[in-house]
Amino acid sequence: MSQTSANQSFIARLIAKIRETKSAVCVGLDPRMEQLPEEILAKNRPASTAEIAAAYEHFCRLVIDVVAPLVPIVKPQAAFFEAQGPAGMLALGRVCHYAADAGLLVILDGKRNDIGSTASAYAQAYLGPGTASAWGTDALTVSPYLGEDSLSPFLGVAEAKQAGIFILVKTSNPGGGQYQDLLTPEVPLYQQVAKQVEGYAAASKGDQPYGCAGAVVGATYPEQLAELRKLMPSTWFLIPGYGSQGGTSADVAHAFDSQGLGAIVNSSRGIHFAYQKEPYASEFGEAKWQEAVEAAVKAMTKDLQENTPLGKLLTAG
Amino acid sequence: MSQTSANQSFIARLIAKIRETKSAVCVGLDPRMEQLPEEILAKNRPASTAEIAAAYEHFCRLVIDVVAPLVPIVKPQAAFFEAQGPAGMLALGRVCHYAADAGLLVILDGKRNDIGSTASAYAQAYLGPGTASAWGTDALTVSPYLGEDSLSPFLGVAEAKQAGIFILVKTSNPGGGQYQDLLTPEVPLYQQVAKQVEGYAAASKGDQPYGCAGAVVGATYPEQLAELRKLMPSTWFLIPGYGSQGGTSADVAHAFDSQGLGAIVNSSRGIHFAYQKEPYASEFGEAKWQEAVEAAVKAMTKDLQENTPLGKLLTAG
Repeated sequence: MSQTSANQSFIARLIAKIRETKSAVCVGLDPRMEQLPEEILAKNRPASTAEIAAAYEHFCRLVIDVVAPLVPIVKPQAAFFEAQGPAGMLALGRVCHYAADAGLLVILDGKRNDIGSTASAYAQAYLGPGTASAWGTDALTVSPYLGEDSLSPFLGVAEAKQAGIFILVKTSNPGGGQYQDLLTPEVPLYQQVAKQVEGYAAASKGDQPYGCAGAVVGATYPEQLAELRKLMPSTWFLIPGYGSQGGTSADVAHAFDSQGLGAIVNSSRGIHFAYQKEPYASEFGEAKWQEAVEAAVKAMTKDLQENTPLGKLLTAG
Repeated sequence: MSQTSANQSFIARLIAKIRETKSAVCVGLDPRMEQLPEEILAKNRPASTAEIAAAYEHFCRLVIDVVAPLVPIVKPQAAFFEAQGPAGMLALGRVCHYAADAGLLVILDGKRNDIGSTASAYAQAYLGPGTASAWGTDALTVSPYLGEDSLSPFLGVAEAKQAGIFILVKTSNPGGGQYQDLLTPEVPLYQQVAKQVEGYAAASKGDQPYGCAGAVVGATYPEQLAELRKLMPSTWFLIPGYGSQGGTSADVAHAFDSQGLGAIVNSSRGIHFAYQKEPYASEFGEAKWQEAVEAAVKAMTKDLQENTPLGKLLTAG
């Protein structure tokens, strides 16, 4: 189904998938019991962690069935699976492999971080390509607080395995600025992290426009997003905060380069629980929740095509 | 086996276990294929992730058998289990429950972090008490880069579930200072984090000397450790970096309060792979690796009893 090859770098595979699907949407997979459609709950009214994990897996497979032809990449959120204990992790592994088998690239949103050989162990766990990793994932989100010797092991494995990492630089949450915006002797902390990430990205890009080290930069602070795009010309951005958190296509437009590359924009609840919100609640309702997923993902793709530089890529290609 | 009760706070249970075992040693569980004793490998020469995970579980159970009567707490490192995929996580869950059933408190070293309801999901996953959590764990290490609204959900669950969290403040790795030591308008970044953690600890301590929010502070920077002890009088410290990373009992002495409370000191490889290092390599060798574990853990406990304020607690009690 995918036109990509595991011999290509993560960025090359990502760009190929963006061209193929004409979309820069990353579909987050954040299953929550209290929001699952009745169809899922009715089949298997879940009580134990194993039953909840089975419901999450069923739900995510049905979401993947809808979005696989429409988007380049999905991003399962590890926390919701881990909350169901070991059974949840078995479900997570199956969901990731199912997505990879459907031709999707997979970022695990795990925000992992540690030092030395422990960081390498996380990297070996989650860095792909796809079905070649123990979890079926291509890329991983990584937290930077432990510093350079906690990040470089991830980079080494990402380069060796043609995989990707996305390091938290400037996050989308209201409290993200508490530490990230603190002024250090030269620049705010998040720009210190940005410099490190850009260095990794520039050193690893080879003949690609972007390196295997990416950055998580929230949609909710558009000025800082625009500034970081300039500071980080070799770094691909993963943008959370579109939709539910208030970020718009005008905000995320700053994340793309002039060719329409350089960013993927995530939405989780806004897509897979679209049936709960207008206009999809009225148009489809709970019974047609998969149609609501399809409509929401198509609307988001169109919004980005029309209101960000992504449109240029598609007309040029 | 344990004299503690799940109705007590994490700190009350920890203090009771320290008094019972006369030890402030936290035994890290960091299984690595290349260092497993021949006894483990011979039974089940591991090749697949499932076989490696089984070997890790077998090894950790045998370590727990030795240390359960000798120390208050163990700290499995999630990364080494996650590196073996879903099979590794099944093994991790069984290891944590085995430790809890043996009367040990369990900190999962996962350095998890996220925002809002996602942070709550991690907290629900790993915050105990013990066998009451999906993973059999009492406490979790947490990374602070995402700021206050990423930490408060962990605190809320920790308070509700009588569990503990240990937030990374000043880590033991050489590169830890890259961001943590950056000077912000008032104080270095790690002190900003320290202030936040101490606020949580003070607010949650109730009738205990310490609150449920703890801090990870490395043994390798003893001056900063001493300074943080003064800044954080309500915060229990989890100290990595003893032994293998060069920290000594004289260094970690600063982490204890004048009563001998307030700190647990972790050693991982230095204990469970003690058979590979002198003096234990000569005295026991690979065949008697469990005796080496016992000797190493007893030596570390004695070192802390004799060279830190912990000794006062034991003579007073």
